[in-house]
Amino acid sequence: MQDIFRHIDDHLNESLAQLTELCKLASVSAHPPTADAIAKTAEHVSGLLRDLGFEASILTKPALSEVEGPAPAEGSGSLGGQAVVYAEQPGRSSRTLLFYDHYDVQPAEPLELWSSPPFEPAIREGKLYGRGVGDNKGNIAARLAALRAWKEVRGELPCSVKFCIEGDEEIGSPQMEEFVEEQRGLLAADACVWEGGGVTWEGIPQLTLGVKGLLYVELAANTVNRDAHSSYGTVLANAAWRLVWALASIKGPDERVLIDGFYDAVRRATPEERAAVEAMPSEEAETLRSYGVEEALTGVRGLDYRLRHLFEPTATIDGLTSGYEGEGPKTVLPARAMAKMDFRLVPDQDPDDVFAKLRRHLDSRGFGDITLRYLSGERPARTPVTDPFVGVVRQAVMDTYEREPIIVPSMAGTGPLYPFVATLGLPTADIGIGYPESRAHAPDENIRIEDFRRGAKAIAALLGRFGEG
Amino acid sequence: MQDIFRHIDDHLNESLAQLTELCKLASVSAHPPTADAIAKTAEHVSGLLRDLGFEASILTKPALSEVEGPAPAEGSGSLGGQAVVYAEQPGRSSRTLLFYDHYDVQPAEPLELWSSPPFEPAIREGKLYGRGVGDNKGNIAARLAALRAWKEVRGELPCSVKFCIEGDEEIGSPQMEEFVEEQRGLLAADACVWEGGGVTWEGIPQLTLGVKGLLYVELAANTVNRDAHSSYGTVLANAAWRLVWALASIKGPDERVLIDGFYDAVRRATPEERAAVEAMPSEEAETLRSYGVEEALTGVRGLDYRLRHLFEPTATIDGLTSGYEGEGPKTVLPARAMAKMDFRLVPDQDPDDVFAKLRRHLDSRGFGDITLRYLSGERPARTPVTDPFVGVVRQAVMDTYEREPIIVPSMAGTGPLYPFVATLGLPTADIGIGYPESRAHAPDENIRIEDFRRGAKAIAALLGRFGEG
Repeated sequence: MQDIFRHIDDHLNESLAQLTELCKLASVSAHPPTADAIAKTAEHVSGLLRDLGFEASILTKPALSEVEGPAPAEGSGSLGGQAVVYAEQPGRSSRTLLFYDHYDVQPAEPLELWSSPPFEPAIREGKLYGRGVGDNKGNIAARLAALRAWKEVRGELPCSVKFCIEGDEEIGSPQMEEFVEEQRGLLAADACVWEGGGVTWEGIPQLTLGVKGLLYVELAANTVNRDAHSSYGTVLANAAWRLVWALASIKGPDERVLIDGFYDAVRRATPEERAAVEAMPSEEAETLRSYGVEEALTGVRGLDYRLRHLFEPTATIDGLTSGYEGEGPKTVLPARAMAKMDFRLVPDQDPDDVFAKLRRHLDSRGFGDITLRYLSGERPARTPVTDPFVGVVRQAVMDTYEREPIIVPSMAGTGPLYPFVATLGLPTADIGIGYPESRAHAPDENIRIEDFRRGAKAIAALLGRFGEG
Repeated sequence: MQDIFRHIDDHLNESLAQLTELCKLASVSAHPPTADAIAKTAEHVSGLLRDLGFEASILTKPALSEVEGPAPAEGSGSLGGQAVVYAEQPGRSSRTLLFYDHYDVQPAEPLELWSSPPFEPAIREGKLYGRGVGDNKGNIAARLAALRAWKEVRGELPCSVKFCIEGDEEIGSPQMEEFVEEQRGLLAADACVWEGGGVTWEGIPQLTLGVKGLLYVELAANTVNRDAHSSYGTVLANAAWRLVWALASIKGPDERVLIDGFYDAVRRATPEERAAVEAMPSEEAETLRSYGVEEALTGVRGLDYRLRHLFEPTATIDGLTSGYEGEGPKTVLPARAMAKMDFRLVPDQDPDDVFAKLRRHLDSRGFGDITLRYLSGERPARTPVTDPFVGVVRQAVMDTYEREPIIVPSMAGTGPLYPFVATLGLPTADIGIGYPESRAHAPDENIRIEDFRRGAKAIAALLGRFGEG
């Protein structure tokens, strides 16, 4: 592998220049999307893949209107539906590795907090700054560097490679399940490399094998046809009270979700997953200090803290709005009140099922008047820590970093992993170029150039080991 | 009295012109107050009283910083402190009638909903439109018309008359209790005519004898030092949840307030008050229709509806704010959440006492982390329906309207009545010029000119009867 690694070293500046060009395209998928930049970026990425000998095409996700469900009657799905870049190239081995990535980025605002313009990437002190340099264009560029090394040094890829690079990840990957279902033939593979990943502060590489799911809803109470003088609190129903009581029925101060059947489908951590979590370094003290609190919710700590964070579902109020929100007193009985809520779900919870249970919960607790909108949903997924592919990835990482990686059975966040694991039946793991201060989604997003170099080498090593396997 | 009434008729246009001039002064007391217009209006009103032979002066309320309490340690009082116009004139009888009024007005916004400019009063179809034509400058002008008639027809007033006309009523009359305490000698009288009042849709005059009190508070939860990604819902405390649970502990869906001792000081309606409420016309159907609902809160109706509306305290959420309040999904765990609440209080509840009980309630229910700010407080007050003064006012109204008035033992709203009833020991009642579509506080505030004429005559009749009494 040293010849391959050397090629990556020798062409590092070219790879960074390629990444810089890619990051100049402001492919923001949030609403309203920068449609022109999105389309240009999809074309640009396709071109880079073709330059490496890939057959690349631009696919479209199923239109929202054609999708049946999953949003129930009251629901309304998210928008999105940007082009998906698909590419494939056969290799020496017929085993196929699928890369899932995304070419869209988060908005750059607030612009004034950037040290240099977000869409004009700049190198300072060994770091490259710019929107998307880490999440996720930097990972795309690192994969390209590894592929180029194989092609130029050995003349062919060690295994067959496919790419699925979407443009809606930052807005929740709408229609990804339907897209994968529709394209399951095209996307067929033996394993999948996921989009994120990186190293800890101590430089230890981490492999993450799963994601939580998500159900995002809006609850609203509408009582009277307009705000009333608050002296009518005697006889007119107050929307803020209705909403408060409905919310309080969903979860109490002991943090237990009170929706009947909410926990039914929760898959407990396996002994192997538990062991992996035990071996993980603790970020507990750092997280609590960073948020200025002395203890975690309900006093949970140590292994229980990590198990709860990675294996338990949540019910979170994301926002509340009703009536008078300004300074000082104003006596008003609100006609309308609204809450945003998200539920982080774990295997095998299903957002549509939880939505239906939440509706039944409200109805049965006397809150039939509370309207519920389904804003978005993603299913949770985990690759078992015992899957042979995890071993292959672990070996590839050890080839490169010369140390044992941390295995993270699931992240606490959400991503469109489910159709890759469930529909395509693939084991998944990530190898990435991030570090704890990458500031994904925030101003001064950056990567360390050394992390980029190592991440590219780890991908190159994985291609080699996977081809042999 | 016919000579007096005739004078009012003959000088109606002059009285309306006087009212029009008064309403051209935009004496808005809300923050920031129109300080120049406020001062001019106080001077203008003093001048009108001096023209009728009153000795008039401009007094100041105690400065906020000099006031001890009532805001407890966490509290913060309202602003305000505009000049009070005080005036007095001896009459034939030594019995003294005190008029409480206010020369400040509500803001005119939203301006685009006015049919004519709010501070350029205009007559259309027997109505005078403009900010303050009813609340409360029109009542001041009607009192002046009655006083002028007595002076010009009989040469003197039939009783001694005092005026206390404040400039802060529309922002909750801050420091009024302290002012009355400080000026109790100057304000000494035998009875008090209150500022509002008017007739029903059927043209039946109403006399209102009491007000509810008010405690207005802000509750806030602060958990972490900044908003977090909602995946931390597992381990970080969510301010929105803390607030929701604290609020839900204060009142449940059965509308019963759960603060220990909240109802202890509630004075039940006397048999006479109950009888008065029974004799009141029902506004229930009209109110419910107007707010687009089929039934009142908890299904209360008929006499129970009216008794609850007038004699029971409330706990109202006036506003909620936390986290993400925009369109679509955004996954955020809020660091801060805030609620506004008001409690309408009935005799003999005390806002300071209820505030202390609310603090104890939160502490004892595990919500010591919820901060509480005292934004404003007013005490409730009622004049007994059996007070002889009520009989005198009733007679005066019958002289004018030739029909029995409706006696309303208390309104559901709040006003600074308490120091007049409790500190000065005065019976109170209102005689006013309003009607159900007067639109006080709203665009197109207006009075019917016939109501103005009759209201002035009722005041004139009251002066006469009171002087005889």
